[in-house]
Amino acid sequence: MLRIKHTAIKTKGIVPRYLKVTGSPDRRTDLILIRNFQTSIAKFSATSRYYPNEPSKPLVKTESIPGPLSKREISELDKVFDARPAYFVADYEKSLGNYIADVDGNLYLDLYAQIASIALGYNNPSLIKTAKSQEMIRALVDRPALANFPSKDLTNSLRKLLKFAPKGQDQVWPALSGADANELAFKAGFMFRQSQERGYDTEFSKEENDSVMNNQAPGSPQLSVLSFRRAFHGRLFASGSSTNSKPLHKLDFPAFDWPHAEYPTYKFPLEENEAANRAEDDRCLKQVEELIVTWKNPVAALIIEPIQSEGGDNHASKYFLQSLRDITLKHNVVYIIDEVQTGVGATGKFWCHEYADIQPSVDLVTFSKKFQSAGYFFHDPKFIPNKPYRQFNTWCGEPARLLIAGAIGDEIINEGLLEQVQRVGRHLFSKLEQLQKQYPDKLQSLRGKDRGTFIAWDLPTGKQRDLLLNILKLNGCNVGGCSTRTVRLRPSLTFEEKHADIFVDVLTKSMKQL
Amino acid sequence: MLRIKHTAIKTKGIVPRYLKVTGSPDRRTDLILIRNFQTSIAKFSATSRYYPNEPSKPLVKTESIPGPLSKREISELDKVFDARPAYFVADYEKSLGNYIADVDGNLYLDLYAQIASIALGYNNPSLIKTAKSQEMIRALVDRPALANFPSKDLTNSLRKLLKFAPKGQDQVWPALSGADANELAFKAGFMFRQSQERGYDTEFSKEENDSVMNNQAPGSPQLSVLSFRRAFHGRLFASGSSTNSKPLHKLDFPAFDWPHAEYPTYKFPLEENEAANRAEDDRCLKQVEELIVTWKNPVAALIIEPIQSEGGDNHASKYFLQSLRDITLKHNVVYIIDEVQTGVGATGKFWCHEYADIQPSVDLVTFSKKFQSAGYFFHDPKFIPNKPYRQFNTWCGEPARLLIAGAIGDEIINEGLLEQVQRVGRHLFSKLEQLQKQYPDKLQSLRGKDRGTFIAWDLPTGKQRDLLLNILKLNGCNVGGCSTRTVRLRPSLTFEEKHADIFVDVLTKSMKQL
Repeated sequence: MLRIKHTAIKTKGIVPRYLKVTGSPDRRTDLILIRNFQTSIAKFSATSRYYPNEPSKPLVKTESIPGPLSKREISELDKVFDARPAYFVADYEKSLGNYIADVDGNLYLDLYAQIASIALGYNNPSLIKTAKSQEMIRALVDRPALANFPSKDLTNSLRKLLKFAPKGQDQVWPALSGADANELAFKAGFMFRQSQERGYDTEFSKEENDSVMNNQAPGSPQLSVLSFRRAFHGRLFASGSSTNSKPLHKLDFPAFDWPHAEYPTYKFPLEENEAANRAEDDRCLKQVEELIVTWKNPVAALIIEPIQSEGGDNHASKYFLQSLRDITLKHNVVYIIDEVQTGVGATGKFWCHEYADIQPSVDLVTFSKKFQSAGYFFHDPKFIPNKPYRQFNTWCGEPARLLIAGAIGDEIINEGLLEQVQRVGRHLFSKLEQLQKQYPDKLQSLRGKDRGTFIAWDLPTGKQRDLLLNILKLNGCNVGGCSTRTVRLRPSLTFEEKHADIFVDVLTKSMKQL
Repeated sequence: MLRIKHTAIKTKGIVPRYLKVTGSPDRRTDLILIRNFQTSIAKFSATSRYYPNEPSKPLVKTESIPGPLSKREISELDKVFDARPAYFVADYEKSLGNYIADVDGNLYLDLYAQIASIALGYNNPSLIKTAKSQEMIRALVDRPALANFPSKDLTNSLRKLLKFAPKGQDQVWPALSGADANELAFKAGFMFRQSQERGYDTEFSKEENDSVMNNQAPGSPQLSVLSFRRAFHGRLFASGSSTNSKPLHKLDFPAFDWPHAEYPTYKFPLEENEAANRAEDDRCLKQVEELIVTWKNPVAALIIEPIQSEGGDNHASKYFLQSLRDITLKHNVVYIIDEVQTGVGATGKFWCHEYADIQPSVDLVTFSKKFQSAGYFFHDPKFIPNKPYRQFNTWCGEPARLLIAGAIGDEIINEGLLEQVQRVGRHLFSKLEQLQKQYPDKLQSLRGKDRGTFIAWDLPTGKQRDLLLNILKLNGCNVGGCSTRTVRLRPSLTFEEKHADIFVDVLTKSMKQL
């Protein structure tokens, strides 16, 4: 018989989450029991155990936001940096868990989380431990040119990342940001495409070697990436050419002449509009295939977000994402899923496109944001170029952020945070459905059901949306918008029912004030 | 009268470099005296004080490189990552100062320094201190969306960076890599150009807003960036279009139709070939102006490295770089200096283009590598776009690396490392000049005189160059190549006369073996 003892000794305010199991001669059973026991605990208090001293509610002391101290610091910052987008100046020392503090002493419940980039709340004890590790210090002070002089830690670091890769993906190429990850994936896609045309082991021709030095075909072929209307894949020049969110993101920059197909626009709630939404899928799929067949520059790759995030939280159905696999296979187009904003747990699965169970696996999956590290996953070794140094740069990723990514992945799995996100998401969504009955006009097209806390809705106008976001801040909730009139919720995975309740109370109050 | 006492207490093997000055009633005088005293010490032993336990010489135990343990680890790494470019697997724990260790126990004097990216040697005590700081831990665990929710540390962090900015530059935009920095600088250049055409405060037209969503002019104007033959500005799509180093860096990727002018090819030694080199400058300048006037797509910006590094350590004269300022002003072209590889001290000045004393200041200066952080400096506030969110992304740089950059800059100044690099560079160059007399064929076009340790030469063929680099490794020196047949020296700024002597001995031995 086993004796299970929860060693609840407080160490610097953090309750250790490991259980001591004694008495069993079978160590394997022990471990399973620990795991089960942990998961059942996780169901009730994963976050509270991270943050026993988390504030119990928001607190706004200033009459306007940014408050006077933030304003002063923003105007100082503005002398050396374009500080116009600053909402307030944060005090990360005083931020904890799901709460972000500012220099005026305001404390907001954070449902924006650095544009969906904080996975485990502020000052997470497990990340602090990683930040203090010897591996981290080495990564910071002796940053290698990873591919030329890899450290002895690198294989482990990448294997750890791959533990969390989407099903079917078993290799990774690191990058530095979502835009970078997407552009490196484009490069992988272009090389793959040309290697199929040319033959993987065929040498480059003299004509290719000569023309490429003048940026001309055939060495610099006029290939294209197909993306979607309202897509966001980054703001560099190639990622920017595939981005289609807002004119302001692209104006005045040269762009590649690449096509955009329409992304389905569904009617909500989904379960009441199945036929109409299927017809919408088919209309858009037809357009995708037509563009692939007719576009002036051959379409080498297709990139899509499983939920378009900057573009307004537009969802794509399982049928749509699977049909794109069929079309891309038929026309020899590389299929890239952009999980930069949707990935790493916020939808209740580690990767959002897992909901679509795409078969066979897509070719490349890009990640960034909540993983802090960035890059793309793949499985077909033919995505490794025929020669070294074709996919290459000095740093090939950021070793410090690879360590953070590994720690984030471990916490998500060990703490059962995916289950928590699903559970809290259901709780939050049903409360919003209730509120929608009261304010149907101000809570239009509520979406994200069964997609964890990745929830959004529309207001009638952009002006009202912006006003609501301001009122929410003044009432203590930091929330972001996307597209022109959408509110998007992007809390950390540490967001619990109690936080959802506070948010819905604040939202209800704010709706009245709107 | 002052009593100056050097507190030479050993603390964990590191001799503190601060001096205690007592007895003066005038604290200001004290500080000046400390600084003078420190500089005079720096002249003799800045590096030895960092690394009192640095190995005294290289040690190669294995018969081939990579050694058997490196080989095994590379083949493991290759299962998850393209490890073909790996020279060996490094053991950064055992690397110190100017020496890099590998997992086979080999110890190399490092004159490559992670493709010119390690400023202060391995495991630098001052960087370790920064890596352990509370600010660093916050930056790692609570990475902000810098422009939306700047931390209270950000203004200081950026001001610190700006302390080291090239003369005339007083604002900065952070990025994540050299390629990223260059592309963000291109964006700044394109917006500047169009704002001059349109009027800084003029609203975008409906036609612009519509066309940009289809990647078409006028919203996506067909503007170009002029760069140079053999240039290297990165490997993303726009930076890649300006790069002209090798076909392999560019093949199979779509490129913008941007022009490349010829970069001057000088005869060495420079002092014996002044007239011929001036004629070469004029020939290339004429081509630059012709391309600006005649290129099919208007040239909005010009980007140049003051020494083309990947492209073969090609130097540009003061006259050439100043004349480009005159041409860019005449034709309203934004002048960008790429200091990614040349910046941060290796040439003996903090920024290499300071040697050219360009008047008026260039418009944008990009940096990365030895600063670990990346970005561009500028001075004209008109390079801040007319609206917020035009130059923007989630992270806007890496706060952890900004802290490292500040620490690197401080050490370079406080330790007198620029003077050290100049002094050691002169010592090394004169020894190489001696060796050149013995091996004129294997030490062709020796260059980098009075440019610190930023020294290079050519071998007759690429094959011989590669062979020499291998022999050098087997004899204990890690050295890199560039272009097709060039050897480039890129040690850390902590490289001293004694290291130069070891290198020249190893090189002499290796030349005999070649």
